[in-house]
Amino acid sequence: MRVPGSSPGRGEERDGSYTITLMLLTRITGCCGKGGGQKGDHFVDYQRNIFCEPQKPNMTENGLGHRERVLNVDTMNPNVKRIEYAVRGPIVQRAVQIEKELKEGVKKPFTEVIKANIGDAHAMGQKPITFFRQVIALCVYPDLLEDDKFPEDAKNRAWRILQACGGGSLGAYSASSGIEVIRQDVAKYIEKRDSGIPSNPDDIYLSTGASDAIVTMLKLLTSGEGKTRTGVMISIPQYPLYSAALAELAAVQISYYLDEDKCWSLDVSELRRAVKAAREHCNPRALCIINPGNPTGQVQNRQCIEDVIRFAAEEHLFLMADEVYQDNVYMEGCQFHSFKKVLFEMGSEYSSVVELASFHSTSKCYMGECGFRGGYMEVINMDPEVKLQLTKLVSVQLCPSITGQALLDLVVNPPQPDEPSYATFIKERTANLHILSEKAKMTEQVLNTIPGIHCNPVQGAMYTFPRLTLPEKAINAAKEQEQAPDMFYCMKLLEEMGICLVPGSGFGQRDGTYHFRMTILPATEKLKIVLEKIREFHKRFTEEFS
Amino acid sequence: MRVPGSSPGRGEERDGSYTITLMLLTRITGCCGKGGGQKGDHFVDYQRNIFCEPQKPNMTENGLGHRERVLNVDTMNPNVKRIEYAVRGPIVQRAVQIEKELKEGVKKPFTEVIKANIGDAHAMGQKPITFFRQVIALCVYPDLLEDDKFPEDAKNRAWRILQACGGGSLGAYSASSGIEVIRQDVAKYIEKRDSGIPSNPDDIYLSTGASDAIVTMLKLLTSGEGKTRTGVMISIPQYPLYSAALAELAAVQISYYLDEDKCWSLDVSELRRAVKAAREHCNPRALCIINPGNPTGQVQNRQCIEDVIRFAAEEHLFLMADEVYQDNVYMEGCQFHSFKKVLFEMGSEYSSVVELASFHSTSKCYMGECGFRGGYMEVINMDPEVKLQLTKLVSVQLCPSITGQALLDLVVNPPQPDEPSYATFIKERTANLHILSEKAKMTEQVLNTIPGIHCNPVQGAMYTFPRLTLPEKAINAAKEQEQAPDMFYCMKLLEEMGICLVPGSGFGQRDGTYHFRMTILPATEKLKIVLEKIREFHKRFTEEFS
Repeated sequence: MRVPGSSPGRGEERDGSYTITLMLLTRITGCCGKGGGQKGDHFVDYQRNIFCEPQKPNMTENGLGHRERVLNVDTMNPNVKRIEYAVRGPIVQRAVQIEKELKEGVKKPFTEVIKANIGDAHAMGQKPITFFRQVIALCVYPDLLEDDKFPEDAKNRAWRILQACGGGSLGAYSASSGIEVIRQDVAKYIEKRDSGIPSNPDDIYLSTGASDAIVTMLKLLTSGEGKTRTGVMISIPQYPLYSAALAELAAVQISYYLDEDKCWSLDVSELRRAVKAAREHCNPRALCIINPGNPTGQVQNRQCIEDVIRFAAEEHLFLMADEVYQDNVYMEGCQFHSFKKVLFEMGSEYSSVVELASFHSTSKCYMGECGFRGGYMEVINMDPEVKLQLTKLVSVQLCPSITGQALLDLVVNPPQPDEPSYATFIKERTANLHILSEKAKMTEQVLNTIPGIHCNPVQGAMYTFPRLTLPEKAINAAKEQEQAPDMFYCMKLLEEMGICLVPGSGFGQRDGTYHFRMTILPATEKLKIVLEKIREFHKRFTEEFS
Repeated sequence: MRVPGSSPGRGEERDGSYTITLMLLTRITGCCGKGGGQKGDHFVDYQRNIFCEPQKPNMTENGLGHRERVLNVDTMNPNVKRIEYAVRGPIVQRAVQIEKELKEGVKKPFTEVIKANIGDAHAMGQKPITFFRQVIALCVYPDLLEDDKFPEDAKNRAWRILQACGGGSLGAYSASSGIEVIRQDVAKYIEKRDSGIPSNPDDIYLSTGASDAIVTMLKLLTSGEGKTRTGVMISIPQYPLYSAALAELAAVQISYYLDEDKCWSLDVSELRRAVKAAREHCNPRALCIINPGNPTGQVQNRQCIEDVIRFAAEEHLFLMADEVYQDNVYMEGCQFHSFKKVLFEMGSEYSSVVELASFHSTSKCYMGECGFRGGYMEVINMDPEVKLQLTKLVSVQLCPSITGQALLDLVVNPPQPDEPSYATFIKERTANLHILSEKAKMTEQVLNTIPGIHCNPVQGAMYTFPRLTLPEKAINAAKEQEQAPDMFYCMKLLEEMGICLVPGSGFGQRDGTYHFRMTILPATEKLKIVLEKIREFHKRFTEEFS
């Protein structure tokens, strides 16, 4: 759902999404994708400009008679149909296909596809933190506790985790909110991070990555119908998990725009505009912030966070702070401030009333352990009865992966200065963050030397979201192919250069502006190649369509 | 939602659930739990018969004025409120509390709580399969590939998995449907299990345990409003994941009863009765079967599966086959038949039209690796456009845990006869299944010697669901405490004997009948104690209330 009358959000920006894929799979007979269709119809995939094999028709004939499938696009959950998720959308599927074609020996103007579409550090060559993997290996196969090759602190840590597991095994379920010892460690980590502001383990819920916890919170918050339906404020550009979850829950997306001209900063007057317009049509109940920003790479300053908290208090909004990039701050003068810390420093007038859920994950920062699906959320000022409901809700899925929980424990409780693994740990962490910082600077610098591309500083997180000047002819060519202009651009970049980026339209952007999201994660030498290929492509593209 | 006029399902059976917990948290002032309440109210928890600390009131006063929380029980998602999940309900929470009290030195008539409430083999002392853990440890910490202590086949398997991971690391995301090599291995496993009936890796979706995939399928199937709202047939007794998911999705639960007098078998005439009644009020679109059965431990025979498939075809229902206990068959003469195999053996009249999703998991069978949250589903005859939508839907959560995926790979591709780990693997697997089989028999035998308890054979899975004869006085005493009689019984059993079971009311049962679900997982000596304690308690309970 979109708030009618509010500024356009993701509703209009359908490219880079499956919605458009399905639209593009229009039958060449001209009839639209809905309903049965005739046996043996061919599909044309305009994006790939190829004919597809006839699909198994939706209508079947046998002794049971001609009939439609029980589950087809007309009968399926309409909320699921509305979901869009560009980060893994058609451009990525095409990239995977091109990789297969390269393997099969198909000649291309490049020898490998470089994927800068997703914040997946290990896939881009970043190495795991040794200590983390040692402890998890010890937990997985405790016979190794006898092995001299493992440092004592790794063994102690593994032993402690195993003691907290049912039957001393990672194979047992944990409490649904997570292993108690780990929730205690998370609370201590938060207290230390937030200069001693107390954290209660009972407010910590471990999760399957941060995504899981974010969806759970949005689920709890969604109620009402029509004008009383829950509205949730999300930034534009946004990380499409938010719009996807809201679509699935049939909650109302309220878009507020970040200010590209001011380094993607958040202006409270824009929040006010958005919430005011939304109140005409829905019941705004939550405000989501991603800091450091995804896809825009900005880091919010303390004043801005205070303003946001004051706004949430005044407008009676539940705050959701997505802080999974809390260690990814590169720019001098920038610093990560947690919403919780700022809230409590504003005094009890605010800290006793503002409801807040903040999210963290093992997938980003210096460790990048996406595959372990570890994460947590901390809830502040949550109604105790709602907490019971939350505990019940998460219990239906039994518990998050125990290896993910164990890895999270190491992230929040890394080697200490008096422990044997400390030096190596610090060296690895520092190196990872240092390289990210260098790549953030390099990305900004190089992109800003390309005529027709403008890039804000990558203050934090793992992404840049540069703005593209596209020739009018290219925009028209894209429209002819029913593609968003930046999807058209990115698809050509992929086909011609083997570089996989995500079009800005997959994240939302102001009408008439065009962007892409690119991660800064490829190894330095590879990142240089990516940037030079973008330079070459952008020049050629501009010439071709001018 | 419940179908009005249909036989009573879980709707009435609210004990063993959080709904009742919240009801019991009635303020002693007499006002019901809804709304604001006064600051400083005390709560009484009748279940535990104790007074609780005043909870933080929902109304807050500060510079921002008196007001309710944004998120409270009145404003939260009403579908979430309707969810009930007994397996982790109040009785388990009380068990955890009692364990803490024991640790703190509180005197009880027992020294430990034995939890037979959940199918969690490792928590009950079952040891992991050595080969599985070796391979996962090697994947987690690949330095171990140099280690002589690991067998070559474990190293080869680890190497193969790592090659299929982004950047050769378990820390990278996979494709959202799972690592391709593993999906291929799953397909091969299914083909072998089903005597060569082909399986396509593109029909396999890896998942976070089976629960995740089951909820995803139910989500896809849910649409419509009022009389066109999707109805889903589930057995009574059922595993409460199903009722919980349907409540959350606001889909209509259509209850069909298993026949306790015929060893919990499924009778197609009961399916017909249920679907006919339901068509008056909703749109029945799916039929869920759990085989081997949870909580009832029956194994469906081939004829019955054929009948169910024919029924699904005739009634135009999507079939969901929960087959996570496929290796857990103990009784002579019983055999596991997969729905897929039976479907294809029935000929193309059925195999070309019946839509089927079947589910498997790493959590049960001989391995019991619940904590790894591995699982998969295979979809048969699914509309290709719906498959695109399914892929999109699962991509929003990025991917299942890679350690869970890797473990699943070992389950579907265990050591082969010519490999060094084969002998140990077979020994461990056989031992685990043999012990389960013995415990299944012992449980049935001992329970059936207790006057007032009747227990069907535990043909498969990991549970028994015996019927209790309860004295009228006990039933009245329970009602006075607003408890279901079997909740009253189980809570007393927990308090007096330290045995944690789940009341039958948490799974659904015919009105006026009472049961509990007990796992057969405690170690043999402990299981004997559990059974003798139940004998002693049941005698005492019967005397007390006669």
